[in-house]
Amino acid sequence: MYRASLDRMSEKIHTFSKFGDAGHGGITRYSLSDAAKQARAYFVERMTKIGAEITTDDMANMYATLPGSDPTAQRIVMGSHCDSVKNGGNYDGILGVMGAMEVLETVVAEKIPHKHPLTAMIWTNEEGSLYEPSMMSSGVICNDYLPANIAPKFRKEVVLKSKPIESIENGYETFGDALEASGYKGDEANRLNPKDYKAMFELHIEQGPILEKAGNDIGVVNCVLGMFCARVRFYGVAAHAGTFPMEDRSDALYAASQALCYMHDEIDKLGHPELVYTTGEIVCHPCVHTVIPDYVDFSVDVRHTDPELLQKVHDIVHGLADREWAKCRCEVEDAWSRDTVYYDEKLVGYVKAAAEELGSKHQYIHSGAGHDAQFAAYMLPTTMVFVSSEKGLSHCEPEHTSDEVCTEGASVLLNAVLKCDAED
Amino acid sequence: MYRASLDRMSEKIHTFSKFGDAGHGGITRYSLSDAAKQARAYFVERMTKIGAEITTDDMANMYATLPGSDPTAQRIVMGSHCDSVKNGGNYDGILGVMGAMEVLETVVAEKIPHKHPLTAMIWTNEEGSLYEPSMMSSGVICNDYLPANIAPKFRKEVVLKSKPIESIENGYETFGDALEASGYKGDEANRLNPKDYKAMFELHIEQGPILEKAGNDIGVVNCVLGMFCARVRFYGVAAHAGTFPMEDRSDALYAASQALCYMHDEIDKLGHPELVYTTGEIVCHPCVHTVIPDYVDFSVDVRHTDPELLQKVHDIVHGLADREWAKCRCEVEDAWSRDTVYYDEKLVGYVKAAAEELGSKHQYIHSGAGHDAQFAAYMLPTTMVFVSSEKGLSHCEPEHTSDEVCTEGASVLLNAVLKCDAED
Repeated sequence: MYRASLDRMSEKIHTFSKFGDAGHGGITRYSLSDAAKQARAYFVERMTKIGAEITTDDMANMYATLPGSDPTAQRIVMGSHCDSVKNGGNYDGILGVMGAMEVLETVVAEKIPHKHPLTAMIWTNEEGSLYEPSMMSSGVICNDYLPANIAPKFRKEVVLKSKPIESIENGYETFGDALEASGYKGDEANRLNPKDYKAMFELHIEQGPILEKAGNDIGVVNCVLGMFCARVRFYGVAAHAGTFPMEDRSDALYAASQALCYMHDEIDKLGHPELVYTTGEIVCHPCVHTVIPDYVDFSVDVRHTDPELLQKVHDIVHGLADREWAKCRCEVEDAWSRDTVYYDEKLVGYVKAAAEELGSKHQYIHSGAGHDAQFAAYMLPTTMVFVSSEKGLSHCEPEHTSDEVCTEGASVLLNAVLKCDAED
Repeated sequence: MYRASLDRMSEKIHTFSKFGDAGHGGITRYSLSDAAKQARAYFVERMTKIGAEITTDDMANMYATLPGSDPTAQRIVMGSHCDSVKNGGNYDGILGVMGAMEVLETVVAEKIPHKHPLTAMIWTNEEGSLYEPSMMSSGVICNDYLPANIAPKFRKEVVLKSKPIESIENGYETFGDALEASGYKGDEANRLNPKDYKAMFELHIEQGPILEKAGNDIGVVNCVLGMFCARVRFYGVAAHAGTFPMEDRSDALYAASQALCYMHDEIDKLGHPELVYTTGEIVCHPCVHTVIPDYVDFSVDVRHTDPELLQKVHDIVHGLADREWAKCRCEVEDAWSRDTVYYDEKLVGYVKAAAEELGSKHQYIHSGAGHDAQFAAYMLPTTMVFVSSEKGLSHCEPEHTSDEVCTEGASVLLNAVLKCDAED
């Protein structure tokens, strides 16, 4: 078994955390921003130093490739993203880039024989923090392979027109303008594709507390959860808080509260504690303390592997519209959905075997969040490796995984990739 | 019994509804705006025509006074406001101005003998729609008489600094600037005061459905409900909607929904259907559909005449903080409160007697909303007359009361004022 270097990983973690440093522990590193360009430059610097060839494609995705012993062999790619959410942490995304870099650096330092070219990759704009949607570039590159209900919003001509959701210094009018000006836009022929690439691996933090609670460092990811999103709306009648008797009210906020509690009760009755469902967003109109609300809507986000269970929850959510809540009419509208994406069985097996052989504390785990790997999985054999997240925190500055566990993740990635390399 | 003129009232209703006409049935007439100045000019035009003397005070409150037979007698004042909420209706406030004008016009037209000077008044900025707070000028004029928990926010030096809550055409930086530029700022010596004024009457729409449901046109208002406002806050932990198990969540929005439903149940158990309580405003953070909310707060507005019942509700609301809701900490903070303001018994009796003698369908009623009359009541004998509101609607464009019922309200006002005039 080969092992990644703690010193090298620490150096990368320390250095990347300076690019977009927000001054209080975390970073804001929007895709193609000055901070993201610093990160890309450091990627180029280190990868060039070990003899990797750098290319970029038309979405500014970056590829650093070490040749293998067989000039005709397909590449094996490892990668993630270097952009972050606003006031995000130092691990989400960039860990997968650092892990890929570390694999290449270890291969060179240890002179590890390998047949296939090995590629470390940066996906452009995974978070969609400045220019929506998230997973933008994997959505574009894998577009021909995506399900019909997902593909349209990731068409290249659509995402190029995406406008920034906030105004930033040195900002651009559209994602397309930012891409043109980035200096990293390359040739469409350089895109990740299933002809030239044999497999894709993505190392990522878990972003949840499951591994930590179980005392494990490594998650062998076998799928990305299927999900559906809906919007539940309540229509009441606005009236003065001081003059309108209770019995005559149609209070849309009270209606929404009752329906939300009922929905929790009904879903919990299904008895699937591993199911996750969330109401994260609520809109109230007119939202004035002296006026009974005439309109409220809230989001519902439900995730699980089993489509039959998702359908049962879907029925409960849509059933809310079958009755009045606090004398308010209720409507439910589906927003979007995706089926569970299972990762490649053989690759999942390599990750599992690598973790076992390294003696890592590990377990199988689902991914509840979306990742570029999930779109790649529609196009070529793909899988992921998770490392534990302290307290399950992510998308926030306290997001943390120790250098040791990050390095362990890189070691699992390295050995899984080598198993894939040795496959035929 | 004297009666107001339906033709004159209809003419006023029709004309005032043009000032600030929003083009779809209602008006937007912020205080001291161009639209409000048109309304003031029309007030001056009609009142000057019948020989009333016009004065304004330092808050631009306007007074049109007809002399009485006794030059030493105190004035009797009737009035309300001519400003509206944004996209408001044609009755809230302006009806009380039109009613006062109609009383003076009827007195002149019918040559009705009266001992006391009679004054029709416009209060400046009752709604506080552009410059907060609402009831601004009555708060300033009556400031020395207001309860200690209310007076400070209505000090003149405080309200003059009030900034507009939105930017409008020909707008000003502060209320004070708008006042200086209005052309209606007069002398502090002209203020309504308990030395020169014997009593104040305010005619207003009910803004609720009680009169209509009971089949009555006239409300004999005996008090403004006591009330308290509080803010209930929930502190949870933000986490990813897809990665965080349900059992580990501290979901502030689910917590707030549970607490809101519980609060309704507990308050309803008190068995006082005439009590009104409202949650009109809710704030959710970060309010993103993929993130479990870490912070939610909502408003509570409770109104009733009985301080003991208000205290019981206050205990229920504050009791929410005694337990966790969905593993979230709860805090309750009092915002403000006021005691029930009872109107002058003698004046209430005059209104009741006038309604009876006119054969108006009437009843006693409380005012759930705040009015300038409620601040005036701390300073001099005051009361109100309500007319029914169709469907109880107000602060919206469909707000409506028929010309006939408006005229009936003016007749009740006229005869109540004449009873007050004849008192000694």
